[in-house]
Amino acid sequence: MKTQLDIIKIGGNLIDDKTALKNFLEQFSSNKSKKILVHGGGRSATRLSERLGIKTQMIEGRRITNEEDLEVVTMVYAGLINKKIVAELQYYGCNAIGLSGCDMNSILAKKRHHRDIDFGLVGDIEKINMNKIDLLLKNGFCPVFSAITHDGRGQLLNTNADTVAAQIAIAFSNIYKVRLLYCFEKKGVLSNPKDDFSVIPFLDKNIYQELKTSGAISKGMIPKLDNCFDALRSGVSEINIGGSEIMNQKSFEFTKLSL
Amino acid sequence: MKTQLDIIKIGGNLIDDKTALKNFLEQFSSNKSKKILVHGGGRSATRLSERLGIKTQMIEGRRITNEEDLEVVTMVYAGLINKKIVAELQYYGCNAIGLSGCDMNSILAKKRHHRDIDFGLVGDIEKINMNKIDLLLKNGFCPVFSAITHDGRGQLLNTNADTVAAQIAIAFSNIYKVRLLYCFEKKGVLSNPKDDFSVIPFLDKNIYQELKTSGAISKGMIPKLDNCFDALRSGVSEINIGGSEIMNQKSFEFTKLSL
Repeated sequence: MKTQLDIIKIGGNLIDDKTALKNFLEQFSSNKSKKILVHGGGRSATRLSERLGIKTQMIEGRRITNEEDLEVVTMVYAGLINKKIVAELQYYGCNAIGLSGCDMNSILAKKRHHRDIDFGLVGDIEKINMNKIDLLLKNGFCPVFSAITHDGRGQLLNTNADTVAAQIAIAFSNIYKVRLLYCFEKKGVLSNPKDDFSVIPFLDKNIYQELKTSGAISKGMIPKLDNCFDALRSGVSEINIGGSEIMNQKSFEFTKLSL
Repeated sequence: MKTQLDIIKIGGNLIDDKTALKNFLEQFSSNKSKKILVHGGGRSATRLSERLGIKTQMIEGRRITNEEDLEVVTMVYAGLINKKIVAELQYYGCNAIGLSGCDMNSILAKKRHHRDIDFGLVGDIEKINMNKIDLLLKNGFCPVFSAITHDGRGQLLNTNADTVAAQIAIAFSNIYKVRLLYCFEKKGVLSNPKDDFSVIPFLDKNIYQELKTSGAISKGMIPKLDNCFDALRSGVSEINIGGSEIMNQKSFEFTKLSL
């Protein structure tokens, strides 16, 4: 039987809200399975850019990452947020190690090529070097990933944190029984985005299709859910979306995905 | 016989000058011994503070690290510089892993207590968790340390990079034959700070004392050299100070320390 491995992604307000983050990290540490944390950046990078007077460049509603933007996200995600999370986890007795994709050559990516838009220094994942990350797991460490990756030729790249979590989950599903958990400030995927109590308890491909057609599932949630269904199809055994409580299965209110 | 381990510290203009850093990292990668890199921050943190309008607080000519300063150095040292160096080393075929003291609980420090001055969030090293760092060395990785440490209770601390290098060197001298190299923009310790060609080839405690008395060795160099003599007394077998070239012993011009 395969050993259980939890890949947990946190994002959104869970990172910006100091108390919520502390609460999450305490619960995360009390989960004694082998585990990997992947974090997004919350609003800190945008706030730093604003303070530095760096203007966000948008093309057709999509954000472009130029060299200055990449420096900001590397500072905020790989530096400030990653090290704050690791130091806090150490306090809670979890022997964390903060990583970005360049570290141990753990996540290799390729600059995104798009026919019409140059997204700049944005990376699409090419390879997760699972054996190197597994060496840390096997020695009792808990890897904590920021979503900064590299191209192997010295260039750091900004990558979507949901995708990082999903790709790590897929890579490890060969040797572990992988549970992928997306934790954020809501209790789950909502059938009515304005009603926090409208959590969808089960979501399969058919229901997903219906909710997309009706417009109930909104723009930001679509790539996240696409990542999830992709991961389920690729061998990840369980995927849940919800608040911090889902980690220790203390909550009955969350969204469980199935094919 | 003990295996050779090189602990190499880079600082000063070597970090600020893109070409000099590239050249250093290429030479560093071609050194095939087991090795650990420790880096300072150069001027980037000061520049970022200035752009953010953060004023440096000084008490009796000594810099104080408040919470805002700590966020800046964590972003710049543990984030931007550390990950840029690691990505570049990967390009040169060196399997680097960027770490701060909180990662793997590798460097535990204590907030500095001084009778008269509160230095703020500055850490003095209490313990190097050598076994954890050695696990990485034994598996072929090259640890790259920023000088950010932690107190084990969730607090990150700003620590002197020269001291980090010296303390790591001392900790490892029990099991390795440790060579400690300080690389910077000069060719070595100068007998006349205004003359780059006045490199002192050998420096022992007596000569050091004389040069301090005569004023030839200046303020910034004194704590660095004190660290060095401390390390030599504690079992480090060789310490050299000079330019990038000293790494592969291609240069005959550098300062060699002895007790």
